[in-house]
Amino acid sequence: MLNPATEALAAELPEGVLRPIEERYLEEPRGRWRGQAGLLAAPRDVTEVAAVVRACAAARVGIVPRGGGTGLVGGQVLHDGPPPLLLTLERMASARGAWPEEDVLIAEAGMTLQAVHDAAAAIDRQFPLSLASQGTATIGGCLATNAGGVAVLRWGNARALCLGIEAVLPDGSILHGLSRLRKDNTGYDIRDLLIGAEGSLGIITAASLRLAPRPAAVGTAMIVVRDPAAALQLLGIAQAQLAGGVTGFELIGGTGLEFLAEAMPSIRRPFDPAPPWLVLLEVALPAGTDPLEALGDLLERGIAEGLASDALLAQSAAQAAAFWTVREQIPEANRLIGAVASHDISLPLSEIPRFIIDACAMLDALGDFRINCFGHLGDGNLHYNVFPARGHTRAEHDALRPAISEAVHSMVVARGGSFSAEHGIGRLKVADLARWGDPTRLAAMRAIKAALDPLGIMNPGAVLA
Amino acid sequence: MLNPATEALAAELPEGVLRPIEERYLEEPRGRWRGQAGLLAAPRDVTEVAAVVRACAAARVGIVPRGGGTGLVGGQVLHDGPPPLLLTLERMASARGAWPEEDVLIAEAGMTLQAVHDAAAAIDRQFPLSLASQGTATIGGCLATNAGGVAVLRWGNARALCLGIEAVLPDGSILHGLSRLRKDNTGYDIRDLLIGAEGSLGIITAASLRLAPRPAAVGTAMIVVRDPAAALQLLGIAQAQLAGGVTGFELIGGTGLEFLAEAMPSIRRPFDPAPPWLVLLEVALPAGTDPLEALGDLLERGIAEGLASDALLAQSAAQAAAFWTVREQIPEANRLIGAVASHDISLPLSEIPRFIIDACAMLDALGDFRINCFGHLGDGNLHYNVFPARGHTRAEHDALRPAISEAVHSMVVARGGSFSAEHGIGRLKVADLARWGDPTRLAAMRAIKAALDPLGIMNPGAVLA
Repeated sequence: MLNPATEALAAELPEGVLRPIEERYLEEPRGRWRGQAGLLAAPRDVTEVAAVVRACAAARVGIVPRGGGTGLVGGQVLHDGPPPLLLTLERMASARGAWPEEDVLIAEAGMTLQAVHDAAAAIDRQFPLSLASQGTATIGGCLATNAGGVAVLRWGNARALCLGIEAVLPDGSILHGLSRLRKDNTGYDIRDLLIGAEGSLGIITAASLRLAPRPAAVGTAMIVVRDPAAALQLLGIAQAQLAGGVTGFELIGGTGLEFLAEAMPSIRRPFDPAPPWLVLLEVALPAGTDPLEALGDLLERGIAEGLASDALLAQSAAQAAAFWTVREQIPEANRLIGAVASHDISLPLSEIPRFIIDACAMLDALGDFRINCFGHLGDGNLHYNVFPARGHTRAEHDALRPAISEAVHSMVVARGGSFSAEHGIGRLKVADLARWGDPTRLAAMRAIKAALDPLGIMNPGAVLA
Repeated sequence: MLNPATEALAAELPEGVLRPIEERYLEEPRGRWRGQAGLLAAPRDVTEVAAVVRACAAARVGIVPRGGGTGLVGGQVLHDGPPPLLLTLERMASARGAWPEEDVLIAEAGMTLQAVHDAAAAIDRQFPLSLASQGTATIGGCLATNAGGVAVLRWGNARALCLGIEAVLPDGSILHGLSRLRKDNTGYDIRDLLIGAEGSLGIITAASLRLAPRPAAVGTAMIVVRDPAAALQLLGIAQAQLAGGVTGFELIGGTGLEFLAEAMPSIRRPFDPAPPWLVLLEVALPAGTDPLEALGDLLERGIAEGLASDALLAQSAAQAAAFWTVREQIPEANRLIGAVASHDISLPLSEIPRFIIDACAMLDALGDFRINCFGHLGDGNLHYNVFPARGHTRAEHDALRPAISEAVHSMVVARGGSFSAEHGIGRLKVADLARWGDPTRLAAMRAIKAALDPLGIMNPGAVLA
C-alpha cells in the first residue's frame, strides 16, 4: 500500500526541489479528471531525480512523472488514492550537446519538442518528430508515451528517433545510456522498454536523439480523393515513385472542414464546398528535383486512374504552412464542437476503407451523429471522433458514450487493429488493455513491472491496474 | 540447476518432433566451440514449440534455440554444462501471408532471410534487411540477434523492420503478436525486448515484417576517398543532397582488397593498385531521376572538396552486383587469411577517423600486424580485424589475442563505442558485457531474466552468465 506524500517526505527531499503546486499541474486537456495534490518536486539534475525517487521508495509514496501535460489518456494525473509526489522535469530543459556531423542531439527530458526542433535547426538539422502540441509537450513525455504525430510514415514514432536514454529506475539507480551509436547489440533493449512505459517503469531524464538533414526539396499538396480506398492507392503509387520520400500522408474528411467552417471561420478553407475526402501529402526529395513536377506527375496519374479529382499544390512555404494549419486545427475545432466519443485507433492499412464504411453504418444504427474521421492515414492511424448531429449537444448523448466506444473498439480489434494507436494507455484505457491485450503479453508486462518496481511507486495505476 | 536432456524427456515431447543430431547442429562458423549433444527437437508449429518448452521447463532442461547457425558469438551452441535440448525451427519455414498493399509479410521463424527476400520479390516488394549470410541465416535468428547488415543506414536493424512477433515464453505460453500495425501504443514493448535477447527470454516463432517498394532508381558507386574522415564528409553531403536516399555506405580498406587478391584472386579488383580507402555507396532515388547523374554530381563535389580522387559508377545491375561481391567476399578472404583477433565495434561517427589512427598506432606498438578495417561506416560500425604480417601465421600470435581484443575494446568503450555493434553477446562476449555494461542496465536485465525465465532454461549461459 502506498502512503500520501506528506511534510515528512518533504524533509527527506533534496533542498530547493519542492515547488508550490499550481492548478495547471493537476489538470489534463480534456478535463476528465483533476489530479490529487500531494507534493511537487522539480529536480535540477539526474542525481536530484534519483534522490527524490529513493525518498519516495523509502516512504512508499507514489510518483507521477509529468511532461508538458498534453497527454490525452490521463497518464499525468492521479485522481484517486493517496496523493502522490508529482515530478516535473521542467528545470531539466537544456540541450547537453549537439553533433551535427553525426546527426545527434542530447536533450534533457524537460525540453519542449519545439525547443528540440529549434536546437536542431540551429545546427541546420531537423528533428522529425512533429505534433500539434509540440510547443508544450516535452521530449521526455514524448518518449515516455512513444508519441507519434505527422511524420511517422517516414521517420517512425518517438522510439525510432531515440538512440539512447538516461533514466532513473524505481530503486533510484541511474541508467547511463546516452549513446550516440546507431548500432549496439549488447543485451536486452531496456531503452525501448522504458520508452512507451508512460513513466510506470522509471523516469527518462535525458535522451540522445537522432536528427536528420533538412530536406533539399519539399513539396506539399492537398488532393481531393474519391474515397479512403483511393487515398491508399495513391499512397502506394507515391511511395513506389518517390523512393520512400513521402513524409506525411494525412486524411481529412469533409466533416473536419465543415467543423472548421463552423467553429473557426477565420481559417481559410482549401475547397468550398468541402469535398467528402482529401489528403494532405508532403514529400521530401533530392536536390535538383522539382517537387511541383513530382507532385504534378502523381496527381496526373491519380486523376487518370480515377483516384483523385482536384488538388492544390503549395507554391510557397507559406502556402504549405497554411495547408498544415487546416490539418492541425481540426482537433481544436473538434474541441469547440464537443465530441460524444473520440477514438485513437489503428488498423492494418487494407482494412481501413471497409472499416470506415462499416463503422459509419453501425453508428447510424445507434443514433444521429456526425463523424469526423481524420488522421495519419499513411500509418493506418485514424482519429475517429463521434459528434452530435447539428443542433444537438454533446450532453444529450453522454449516456451513449460507453456504448459507442465499445462498439468502435470492438470493431477495430476484430480487424486486427489497436484501440490506442499513439496516445497510450494512461489511466483512461487501463481496462481496455486488460480486456483486449494478449494475455501472455499482459502477464509478461506484469512480471516486468513487479521485477523493476516491486513497491509499485512508479506512476501507480497507469498502464496496469 | 539444469538437467541434461535425456530419453525420459524425449518421451514427454510431441510425437515426431525429435530428429537425429547431425554434426552441423553442434558447430559454429569460427570453430571456437563444439556444442553439447542432447536432443534435437524440430517442432512443426507454435503449439509444438510450446509443448517442447513446457516439457523442458518441467524437466529443468536447458533449451538452445538455433536459427541458421551463422551467428559469430556462439549463441547457438552450448559447449559445457548439461547437454541441452537443441530447438530448430527449420520445419516452420513458410510465409503465412503477404499484403503487398500494406507492405507486410508474415514469415515463420525458420525461413531463411533469402526466402523472405524471394517472397517479397514475388509480390514486387523488397525486404531491406541484407546480410552476406542471408542464404543460411533465418529470419528468426536475425530477429533474435537484431541483425544488422548493409542497409541499416536507411532501414535500421532487424528490429526496425519487424511490426510484431509470435513467440513462446519460458513458461510455454504463446505470445500472439503478429500485428500488421504501424502504430500501437498499448503497453510495454515486449516485442523489442525479445528481439535482440538471443533466445534467452523466449523463442520467436513467426514475425510480421515490414516490406518496402522496390526503389524506382538505384545507383551504385565505388569511390576512392582520401581517408575515413573524408568518407564521412562525403556521406554528410550525400545525405543532405539525396533526402536520406543513401541506402548503403560501406568502407573498404586497401588491406581488404589486398586480401582478396591474395586469397581469392578470381574476384576482379576494382582498382589496381589498391587505394588505401574506398567507399561503396548505394542510393535509391525517385522515379525520373538519373542515379548516374546524382552520383556524378556527388563525385564532382567530392573531388572539388578534396575528399575523393577517383570512382567507378556502376553502369548496369551486373556491375553493381560485382561491386557488392567485392565487399561481401572480404569476410571470406579474412577467413582464408586467418585473423589473430576480430572485432565488431561501433563508435559515434565523429570518433571514427581518430580511432582508426590511434588503434593502428596502438597495435603497431604491440607487434607486426596487418589490419583489415572495413564495414558499415554509415552506421559507425567497423569490422576491425587484426592479421599476422605477411609471411607469418595466426598461430604465432595466438597468445596475443586477449591482449589485442582488450586493447581494442577498451579504446572503443572509452570513446563511447560498443564492443558488439551487430553480432550480439552470445557466449563469446558475456564477460565483456558484465565488464562494460552499465551496472543499472545489467541489474534491470537480470531482474527481467529472473522474472520471465525463473528456471533459467532459455539459452542458458547466453547473454547473461
